Amino acid sequence: MKSEQIFGQVLRTIRKKQKMSQENLAFRSNLDRTYISMLERGIHQPTLNSLLAIASALSMKASELVELVENEIEKE
Amino acid sequence: MKSEQIFGQVLRTIRKKQKMSQENLAFRSNLDRTYISMLERGIHQPTLNSLLAIASALSMKASELVELVENEIEKE
Repeated sequence: MKSEQIFGQVLRTIRKKQKMSQENLAFRSNLDRTYISMLERGIHQPTLNSLLAIASALSMKASELVELVENEIEKE
Repeated sequence: MKSEQIFGQVLRTIRKKQKMSQENLAFRSNLDRTYISMLERGIHQPTLNSLLAIASALSMKASELVELVENEIEKE
């Protein structure tokens, strides 16, 4: 699976664990809801800035978010 | 300072510590040398895939690379 697809799944899992809607995540991260949706569907890749913004909106560090993705990639 | 500029400085510092040229990093990460140069000058932002490729080329984890950037951002 492509890393952006894995990222999308990791992002969706964390967002749902925090019972946060895409709209709310988009608002908190100051990103567009459609962009969040495309990230979660693995259609877009996050940039460093969107990683930082999304992680902050999820009250975590971007490095933690990237580490979760790396862990999933290693499982493959 | 913008996060992409901080990323560029962190990347250059690590690359030089490893005595690796931009050409060699470009070759190892399968990225274009001009792209590496623009990343180091903070003109471009890395995507998730380029973070993963660059970190691998530098024999480190992308999460470690992002953490170094976060540490620098926090110092500001």
